[in-house]
Amino acid sequence: MVVKVYGPHCASTKRVLVCLVEKEIEFEVVPVDVSKGEHKDPEYLKLQPFGVVPVIKDGDYTLYESRAIMRYYAEKYRSQGVELLGNTIEERGLVEQWLEVEAHNFHPPAYDLCIHVLFGPMFGVTSDPKVIEESEAKLVQVLNIYEERLSKSKYLAGDFFSLADISHIPFLDYIVNNMGKGYLVKERKNVSAWWDDISNRPSWKKVLQSYRAPI
Amino acid sequence: MVVKVYGPHCASTKRVLVCLVEKEIEFEVVPVDVSKGEHKDPEYLKLQPFGVVPVIKDGDYTLYESRAIMRYYAEKYRSQGVELLGNTIEERGLVEQWLEVEAHNFHPPAYDLCIHVLFGPMFGVTSDPKVIEESEAKLVQVLNIYEERLSKSKYLAGDFFSLADISHIPFLDYIVNNMGKGYLVKERKNVSAWWDDISNRPSWKKVLQSYRAPI
Repeated sequence: MVVKVYGPHCASTKRVLVCLVEKEIEFEVVPVDVSKGEHKDPEYLKLQPFGVVPVIKDGDYTLYESRAIMRYYAEKYRSQGVELLGNTIEERGLVEQWLEVEAHNFHPPAYDLCIHVLFGPMFGVTSDPKVIEESEAKLVQVLNIYEERLSKSKYLAGDFFSLADISHIPFLDYIVNNMGKGYLVKERKNVSAWWDDISNRPSWKKVLQSYRAPI
Repeated sequence: MVVKVYGPHCASTKRVLVCLVEKEIEFEVVPVDVSKGEHKDPEYLKLQPFGVVPVIKDGDYTLYESRAIMRYYAEKYRSQGVELLGNTIEERGLVEQWLEVEAHNFHPPAYDLCIHVLFGPMFGVTSDPKVIEESEAKLVQVLNIYEERLSKSKYLAGDFFSLADISHIPFLDYIVNNMGKGYLVKERKNVSAWWDDISNRPSWKKVLQSYRAPI
C-alpha cells in the first residue's frame, strides 16, 4: 500500500517526507495548495478538521499532525531504513523530549519569524518588526541551549540521528537559506556542525529538490 | 528506584502524576515554587535549561517535557497498571495524533485563558480582555471538533482511555472549576460526558487532592 501524503510543499509535511525517505517507505503526494486556501475546503476538512497540512492516508488509515505521523512510521517500520527512535526506551525518551522542545520552544518563534519575514502576504499578515525582533530573541535563547547540548552529543537526543533532528530541518532551512538569518546557526560552532550534518543528508536534499515552498 | 517529580503543584506536572498513578509507579515529589521563581534558579536550570516544570529524576536518568515523560513511563511499564498507548501501532498513532492536537490546538488558548483570568499577577501579566475573548473563541472551535470526534468514540484516540485524555485534564479542570467557564464543556453533550468520565477517575482525584494550584 503506497502512503498518500497531502500538502507536500509545506514545511510541516516535509518533516514527514524526510522520515518516509529515511525509512525507505514508498509514498505518493496529493497537492493541497495552501496559497489558494485548499486546506480549508470542505472535502479536505473531512480528512483534517483543523484545516492544516499534512494528512496521510495509508489504506483505510488516516492520520494527521506531522510529529504523530513520523512517530507512527518510525515505529511501524523499526527494522527498515534508518532507526529514528533510538535503540532503548531511555533513548526514545530523549527523542521524545527533544521532539517536544522543538514543538514548544523552537517552532513557535521560528514559525512567527517565517510568517513575518517570508510568508505574510499569503496569510494576510502584515510584517511586524516587533514580532520579528522578539521571535529572533527567543530563537537565540533556544539555540544557546542547543549549543550547550550539542557540545555533549552529536545529535539532539544523543549520538544518533533521530526524529528530533528531522523535526527541525524544514524551518531551520527557511531561517538559514531563505531569510538571510544563517548567522543564527553559523555563529554557534556545535549548532553549525549539527546543521551541516543533518541538512546534507540525502533524504533532505531529495525532499527539498522535489517539493519547494510555499511554506 | 522511586521516581522524583519536580514541581508537583503545576498543571503540566499533574499530567505526569496522573500517568504515574495510572501506571502504579511509586514516586516522590520535589517542590519547585514557581511563584517564587524557583524554576529559574541556577541549580534547577542544570536539570531543565528552559526553566519550566516538570522534570523527573529516575536514578541517573533525567527527563523533561511532560508529554515526553508520560510517553516514557507508559512505554516502560506497558504491562503494569492501565494501558495508555493503545493496543496496536495504529491505536498508538491516534494517541500521538490527539496528544499533538492537545499540544498545538487546545493548550495554547487554554494556557492564555488561565494566565489572563487566573494567574496573571504571578507572572507579571496584566489581564487583557482581548486575549481572553480571542482565546475563548479559539477554544470554542477546538471543542466543537472534539464534540464531533467524541460522538464517534468514547475517548479521543478511540474507545480506550489514553495519554491523549490525561493530557487535557489539568487545564480543563482550571477552565471548568476555577474560572467559571464550565459552560464551554457542559454545552457540548459528548465533551461533557467525556469530561465527567476522565475527571472522575481516582487518579485525577488523588492528584488534585494532593497537589493544588499555583498553576
